[in-house]
Amino acid sequence: MSQAVSPLAPKRYPRMPDVEGVRIATAEAGIKYRGRRDLMVMVFDEGTEVSGVFTRSRCPSAPVEFCRANLPGGRARILVVNSGNANAFTGRKGREATAMTAAAAARAAGASESTVFLASTGVIGEPLEAGKFAHLLDGMVARAMPHGWEEAARAIMTTDTYPKYLTATARLGEAEVVINGIAKGAGMIAPDMATMLSFVATDAPIAAPVLQALLSRGTQPSFNAITVDSDTSTSDTLMLFATGKAAQRGAPRITDVRDPRLVPFRRALNRLLKQLALQVVRDGEGARKQVEVTVTGAKSSRSAKRIALAIANSPLVKTAIAGEDANWGRVVMAVGKAGEPAERDRLAIWFGDIRVAHEGERDPDYSEEQASAYMRREEIAIRVDLGLGRGRATVWTCDLTKEYVAINGDYRS
Amino acid sequence: MSQAVSPLAPKRYPRMPDVEGVRIATAEAGIKYRGRRDLMVMVFDEGTEVSGVFTRSRCPSAPVEFCRANLPGGRARILVVNSGNANAFTGRKGREATAMTAAAAARAAGASESTVFLASTGVIGEPLEAGKFAHLLDGMVARAMPHGWEEAARAIMTTDTYPKYLTATARLGEAEVVINGIAKGAGMIAPDMATMLSFVATDAPIAAPVLQALLSRGTQPSFNAITVDSDTSTSDTLMLFATGKAAQRGAPRITDVRDPRLVPFRRALNRLLKQLALQVVRDGEGARKQVEVTVTGAKSSRSAKRIALAIANSPLVKTAIAGEDANWGRVVMAVGKAGEPAERDRLAIWFGDIRVAHEGERDPDYSEEQASAYMRREEIAIRVDLGLGRGRATVWTCDLTKEYVAINGDYRS
Repeated sequence: MSQAVSPLAPKRYPRMPDVEGVRIATAEAGIKYRGRRDLMVMVFDEGTEVSGVFTRSRCPSAPVEFCRANLPGGRARILVVNSGNANAFTGRKGREATAMTAAAAARAAGASESTVFLASTGVIGEPLEAGKFAHLLDGMVARAMPHGWEEAARAIMTTDTYPKYLTATARLGEAEVVINGIAKGAGMIAPDMATMLSFVATDAPIAAPVLQALLSRGTQPSFNAITVDSDTSTSDTLMLFATGKAAQRGAPRITDVRDPRLVPFRRALNRLLKQLALQVVRDGEGARKQVEVTVTGAKSSRSAKRIALAIANSPLVKTAIAGEDANWGRVVMAVGKAGEPAERDRLAIWFGDIRVAHEGERDPDYSEEQASAYMRREEIAIRVDLGLGRGRATVWTCDLTKEYVAINGDYRS
Repeated sequence: MSQAVSPLAPKRYPRMPDVEGVRIATAEAGIKYRGRRDLMVMVFDEGTEVSGVFTRSRCPSAPVEFCRANLPGGRARILVVNSGNANAFTGRKGREATAMTAAAAARAAGASESTVFLASTGVIGEPLEAGKFAHLLDGMVARAMPHGWEEAARAIMTTDTYPKYLTATARLGEAEVVINGIAKGAGMIAPDMATMLSFVATDAPIAAPVLQALLSRGTQPSFNAITVDSDTSTSDTLMLFATGKAAQRGAPRITDVRDPRLVPFRRALNRLLKQLALQVVRDGEGARKQVEVTVTGAKSSRSAKRIALAIANSPLVKTAIAGEDANWGRVVMAVGKAGEPAERDRLAIWFGDIRVAHEGERDPDYSEEQASAYMRREEIAIRVDLGLGRGRATVWTCDLTKEYVAINGDYRS
């Protein structure tokens, strides 16, 4: 499972500030991996509000069901995340494991079980032995510290080749608030949500229903617009925690999503979510190129997104990109198979700024050398204009390489 | 592009009998390939009736549009197929090429242009120069012979590693009738229809509307139940020709699809279509294993088919099979992402006869060694029971190997 770090890994990482009201600890629980931390705890001060979005899989993991049940309460005191085992498709044993972990976490944090949140990522179908790590939670909560975001990002990795974390600031009223986020995910990444865990925390005083509205909206052009392999995980989890500590520095409490003071925060949050989502795509299993697919001129934005995803998920488009070939014929094929309104003789296709097809034919002026040179880049942009309406959408994916097959097929050999 | 022959190629081929009323010729037109035949003509005696089903792509090729326009006439005198160029996304030039080919073919066969049918397979977006081969048609019609089905199957190949042809017989009234079929296709294979061409001819006297009903029904559990890579071609064409010559041997003319005398013919046709479709899957690009996915206990057959396709198209399921790993967790994932009714705690999954999961958990009695031994076979059967209803469906696919990526990504290097 040891892969070289993705060539698309960030060249530099931000220094992560503290988020007042959040403390972090990690540990080596030996759940599956040896010699690395695989357990992470985030402890939140009293008053922390929470929102979340989860996988749409019909076969969700036990922790996803556990979180869904606690979410309506809107309060969080502790988050426990393990890597190495997804606690998915584990039946009664899975529910016993979440119950045992939640009880130990609540005891450790001195809080109600209704304020505990859990996430697990790793192998599906293997019972998670919570007994192996539940006894560690007491000590972890006791030694949890405000720093440690980088370690937290590392502890939740599975096939990721690099840790994913980002920070942002925004004005809220007269105060400056912090937003920190971590994410993991590399394969089984598809809308909606993918084998993706992401946890974002802020010190802004924002009420849970507002957080939920921000998050549900914000995932559409970020985590719901990325795909690595069209495979959706049983465990996808994105949560947003707000400790409210910035109120002490004069930040106003926001209880209405239409509050104009929320605008800069929303913008900063959306940018952070998009950047975290792109970090996941750029660590797509075997990825060597980031691919942005934009569809314009569709009948509707929904239609544009479906066509964009048909292109982004096409194995033939993705292998052509891996082969650095501007094979726009395969883009035509993918548009045609999407089942959405499209008229062949109105199609135009660009690779970067190079228009390769126009009005249903190869662009007579297009230079294959120029296109080939473009395809050697690390970031490829494909645009398709349908010429039918005003719908548009952008999604992101990566190329499909032999390494993807090796990572997902050779792991037993 | 030279690949070794698929390990799943047929061990032996049938000797193809003649179909009375059908004559065949092939030629080297040099459309793209050198040193091989790339043009095929089938000439039909007067009175031949025809039916067809075509790609559902919104960007169909020029020959598909041409055939669709002629099909309501129900009569066929000549079929012209070229490989090396799909004449797809070629705009006005594409329509000029079909018009020129059709005119030359009609002249050569001494028939109306409304009885000409065309198919092209190969590169998309490259103008097809019909002038390169239209002049050959006269000579080909003149020398066309009743035998030559094997050569015909070879002339229409693109990335196929072996020719695909089959024959069957059936009783029709007191007479025995022949059904011969050829097919091509290896990649861009997905429901519905895929980069797949298939031409089936019989001497049975069956009216065009009955042929159409038989074909539309017969493709559902055959060509519409296979997928190599979920990518649907712009050019998929399946046609069924009936010369009616068996009437001279006493076969009754069939004008009603409910005619009980049609039953053995329908059965033989359906078996032939299914076997041809499986030959396409077994030549899937890079394939080393044939995979049958059966879903039972679904709310409806439609729902069962969608779930079966979600499993068969999942890159993670397909790479696990390539890696000979009974990774049923990925099957659970694929069931979950299909968006169809499913209850995690009722799921059961088998690899062959080995039940690996039961009531939402790993089957406690399942032996990993036994499952691993099973996965080393050449033909893998996966069954999922949803425990919800009586809907069932079976689809076929192949594994996803590094060779698939090499074939589709390395072709320029």
